Amino acid sequence: MNPPIIYQSLYDTLLELVVYLIFLRYFLVFLHSCGELRSDHVGEKVTLCGWVQYLRQELFVILRDFSGMTQVVIPQKESAWHLKSTLCDLTVESVIKVTGTVRCRPEGQENKLMPTGEIEILAESVEVYNLCQKLPFEIKDFVKKSEALRMQYRYLDLRSSQMQRNLRLRSQVVMKMREFLCNMHGFVDIETPTLFKRTPGGAKEFVVPSREPGRFYCLPQSPQQFKQLLMVAGIDRYFQIARCYRDEGSKPDRQPEFTQVDIEMSFVEQTGIMSLVEGLLQHSWPAELGPIHLPFNTMTFEEAMRDYGVDKPDTRFAMKLIDLSDIFMSTDVPFLRSALSQPGGYVQAICVPSGLRRRKFEDIQDFMSLRQRTLLGHLRLQSAELLECCGVSVRDPSVFHFLWVVDFPLFLTSEHEPENLESAHHPFTAPLPEDTHLLYTEPQKVRGQHYDLVLNGCEVGGGSIRIHKASEQRYVLKNILKEDPTLLTHLLEALDSGAPPHGGIALGECLQMFL
Amino acid sequence: MNPPIIYQSLYDTLLELVVYLIFLRYFLVFLHSCGELRSDHVGEKVTLCGWVQYLRQELFVILRDFSGMTQVVIPQKESAWHLKSTLCDLTVESVIKVTGTVRCRPEGQENKLMPTGEIEILAESVEVYNLCQKLPFEIKDFVKKSEALRMQYRYLDLRSSQMQRNLRLRSQVVMKMREFLCNMHGFVDIETPTLFKRTPGGAKEFVVPSREPGRFYCLPQSPQQFKQLLMVAGIDRYFQIARCYRDEGSKPDRQPEFTQVDIEMSFVEQTGIMSLVEGLLQHSWPAELGPIHLPFNTMTFEEAMRDYGVDKPDTRFAMKLIDLSDIFMSTDVPFLRSALSQPGGYVQAICVPSGLRRRKFEDIQDFMSLRQRTLLGHLRLQSAELLECCGVSVRDPSVFHFLWVVDFPLFLTSEHEPENLESAHHPFTAPLPEDTHLLYTEPQKVRGQHYDLVLNGCEVGGGSIRIHKASEQRYVLKNILKEDPTLLTHLLEALDSGAPPHGGIALGECLQMFL
Repeated sequence: MNPPIIYQSLYDTLLELVVYLIFLRYFLVFLHSCGELRSDHVGEKVTLCGWVQYLRQELFVILRDFSGMTQVVIPQKESAWHLKSTLCDLTVESVIKVTGTVRCRPEGQENKLMPTGEIEILAESVEVYNLCQKLPFEIKDFVKKSEALRMQYRYLDLRSSQMQRNLRLRSQVVMKMREFLCNMHGFVDIETPTLFKRTPGGAKEFVVPSREPGRFYCLPQSPQQFKQLLMVAGIDRYFQIARCYRDEGSKPDRQPEFTQVDIEMSFVEQTGIMSLVEGLLQHSWPAELGPIHLPFNTMTFEEAMRDYGVDKPDTRFAMKLIDLSDIFMSTDVPFLRSALSQPGGYVQAICVPSGLRRRKFEDIQDFMSLRQRTLLGHLRLQSAELLECCGVSVRDPSVFHFLWVVDFPLFLTSEHEPENLESAHHPFTAPLPEDTHLLYTEPQKVRGQHYDLVLNGCEVGGGSIRIHKASEQRYVLKNILKEDPTLLTHLLEALDSGAPPHGGIALGECLQMFL
Repeated sequence: MNPPIIYQSLYDTLLELVVYLIFLRYFLVFLHSCGELRSDHVGEKVTLCGWVQYLRQELFVILRDFSGMTQVVIPQKESAWHLKSTLCDLTVESVIKVTGTVRCRPEGQENKLMPTGEIEILAESVEVYNLCQKLPFEIKDFVKKSEALRMQYRYLDLRSSQMQRNLRLRSQVVMKMREFLCNMHGFVDIETPTLFKRTPGGAKEFVVPSREPGRFYCLPQSPQQFKQLLMVAGIDRYFQIARCYRDEGSKPDRQPEFTQVDIEMSFVEQTGIMSLVEGLLQHSWPAELGPIHLPFNTMTFEEAMRDYGVDKPDTRFAMKLIDLSDIFMSTDVPFLRSALSQPGGYVQAICVPSGLRRRKFEDIQDFMSLRQRTLLGHLRLQSAELLECCGVSVRDPSVFHFLWVVDFPLFLTSEHEPENLESAHHPFTAPLPEDTHLLYTEPQKVRGQHYDLVLNGCEVGGGSIRIHKASEQRYVLKNILKEDPTLLTHLLEALDSGAPPHGGIALGECLQMFL
């Protein structure tokens, strides 16, 4: 008896579905990654592509890709001799495609430490894409390689799980930054040229000869001038993940090219940029590192130097600099009396917690004979390091102390020509409004609208509100810095053609060290 | 009488709300963009920042920013004389901040063509950020400027509504591409170095002298080698919005630096890359340009040359090349007979619709005396252009004909040394599997796994499946191209250390012309 018509249709549909499921089960093979199979997949026919991580006693091949590893079982039955010999002839780091059926590992052979450790794949066919011929080092996380070897064979180094994580995390964090800036806050991502003309004072620029003899481009150290021109161009919110270049010769910790998150806004004040950056970092900070708390603390340059002896204090621990000049005012100790008798002389101390071993303490005593405040800041950090060597916990590596340092001096005495002033950061930084009048009387006392972002004692970003009046910019260049303003005519002209007030920031590559 | 307690709480809340609304209404001033105010905002106190677009008879200031324009009314009453004189003293393109109240324009004075044309702002206070001193040209869309002037004052040119749209649209399209690749398809955004070593055959590379005498970097023409090494490094899906450099001297239509969407995948075949790119373009295509339809058409190189006389056919119109050799086989016309008597000689025609004026037709006749097939392709395009000049509609500028061209020859006869072969695209392209055996016998007949993406007759992208076996790559370099394989030792070594099958594509900047 046939079912009623209304059921017939449902029946047909169900039948189709069953046929489709049987088809899926027996004929379709899914491409999976090496890290994703679990006991839920048992019975499925799957295909994995990857690199041979281990070969074990002609029984197993451990296959690896970016997502993890899976155990592949080499069939031992007579009829599979060809497949067996192909798998047994593989070398470590060869690239293959394996098709097989997922099954549970025999009881007692599960590997709890491996996410795929409950299952294995019984190989049914294999395609060898490439046999690895020879390797300068093994791609095992526990095998330590020299830095030089890692650099020479970077493509092998990047196969390690740590480097895979780093590259993928960086990509994700940058993507989140873009979403925050572009989608949530209306910033425009603009690529600025890297073949540019020489920046006055830009001694560390790479040059690129042009086809015209005697003429060359320069690779800029930052898009600073371009982004200011974009503000003049009416792009109210600009950002760029910008490639920058700096020719400082080869030092192990310096890259000739690096990247910064480059931001500029119009009609904004210092606090506006600061809260934007706080939101940006909160949004893009990897969840696995724990949340970061807003707002960040703020400290003036003067406070940072007074309390920590450095303009980028690590505020994860105290051991602040304490001024003892008053206490020692009537001392008889000769070197202290001598220090205090000098103009501007002082006696300061830091209180180091107990725990330093005697020998270590002697190292520090040597160091103490030096007197300047930044050296006390250095001593503070060195003490922390020595304490940690002795097993005393000082700096918690799992916390993130973000700190804004503000109110920097706008100009510093030139190291080479002490009678001249030079920009503490760059010549485009605007003075604090309440200090602007000092530009024309006591420029050395002017504080700038500059802000540095410090994380656990590292400078991870820096920016400023810029001068937007051509007359002020010309005065700073010509009268204070004694530079030839005609080299920046294009910028001065631009400021005179309707420049909005603007400011920005650059977040540096060193932020990545914390991820 | 007091209300019952339960109402008391509600009453308090409502009272708070009313106080808050009054506060909002009278004391808070919102910062708006110049394009967003409508009659809904009437009565609100607002602040606008922007550029002075027009000054009208001491009555109005038209203020502009990226989002549009708003009419600001200059108050005429005696007590506001100071505000009035400040506003009347403004120059065009000065930058100001205006606070005032939104009101309806008087009846009959609405501007229907202006999105904010129903309202105006009665100014109550103004801050002048910067008076514009002088301008080389007016920032009005209807004022035509020379290309040279636009380039010299790029920051003024970018203030035009067209350039603002271009920059913002580009930013949005690229963002959508990133979302598609990074968030939806697991691609990793990786920055590759731009200070690299010389590529063999890379004649058009800029050089960057290093500090070591006689040694220099090169700026790469594309990240081709880096992305292949990343595949060897186990990054299964890479992309980068990559800066590339090409030193071809200064031509008006060539930029020394440009950007491409650079993509590479492992364990993928040609169709995989092609459907990925189709999805990418569909996802990121601006809605305002209308949808694009998938899949794109595909044509072989041979078909493209046969039917259109070019490897990047504009398929928006027919006028295909038609072979008439059979018909003219027994002709007496001398130049046709002469053509057909040559080895490989043929007679082809295109059918040009009526509409060409006589003089134009004569231009074409001149051109006809040339014989090669690519010249017929050129003639086809020229005919289309001439027809359009005569008012005949041939190519619809509002439609987008995407087309894949595939099965290119892998090698071409060298122009300078006709006995040698050179790569049609680059030496890393893999042969079609069915042609691989010809590498060793008749390499000139090998077709490559190369694919070009063509849009309305422009090549907007190109890519290939790469050679992943070192032995094959070495054979191509040494035996077919007669190049020194030691210059690419790093790549050959990498292929031998476990390279997966891989391929990719680069989408070029010219795609932007269509946005």
